[in-house]
Amino acid sequence: MKKLNDKIQLHPKVTLQFFTDEKCFGPGVALLLEKIKENNSMRKAAFEIDMSYSKAWTIIRRAEKNLGFSLLNSKTGGADGGGATLTESGEKMLIAFRECEKELFLYTEDKFNEYFSWIDNSVIEK
Amino acid sequence: MKKLNDKIQLHPKVTLQFFTDEKCFGPGVALLLEKIKENNSMRKAAFEIDMSYSKAWTIIRRAEKNLGFSLLNSKTGGADGGGATLTESGEKMLIAFRECEKELFLYTEDKFNEYFSWIDNSVIEK
Repeated sequence: MKKLNDKIQLHPKVTLQFFTDEKCFGPGVALLLEKIKENNSMRKAAFEIDMSYSKAWTIIRRAEKNLGFSLLNSKTGGADGGGATLTESGEKMLIAFRECEKELFLYTEDKFNEYFSWIDNSVIEK
Repeated sequence: MKKLNDKIQLHPKVTLQFFTDEKCFGPGVALLLEKIKENNSMRKAAFEIDMSYSKAWTIIRRAEKNLGFSLLNSKTGGADGGGATLTESGEKMLIAFRECEKELFLYTEDKFNEYFSWIDNSVIEK
């Protein structure tokens, strides 16, 4: 097979999610929390990640129910469309999730090199 | 929040996938390869995992194109509906993927305990 230098090389991607009997926390909720933190607003946060306002509330409520604590201090409605800030536990959860992900990403890179170095990326043809 | 002893506790799930400029290998392809190995048949393998025969070929061909080597020795058609066996590289890929996943799962358990032990699973309410 011919070499294609502009080819995107094979690389691993690892996704961390938390479950109880249903999915309750993952990169999507984490990103939403980050956007809420930036904007102090659920509506703006949801808009920025192209998620409906109702869907955003649904995934937050599901996460809270399954984790057993509140992620957001919020007031719904009002002129600002419902301000929202992260609770202390929400902040803690977000930080722990991103830190844990970071360690997992590094570990995955190492393991990918260990287990898959025999794959010759230079000859992969699209 | 009340205790629910029959509650499924919070637990992590990690998913390993390989990408080039598109997704090309993950747990779905690995499972399909395992079923092909068991059945020596693409048709039976696809049936067992409730995947259409054409979809099964699509994901195998996409994986092969992106990895740069063949996963299957196969003959299409015929009375047996197309026999298929794993190539040497296909076997190697499958074994490496499952081994790598296993290490990742163990690491994730450790990291989950390290980062999220403050979450009180006993008080999570459904």
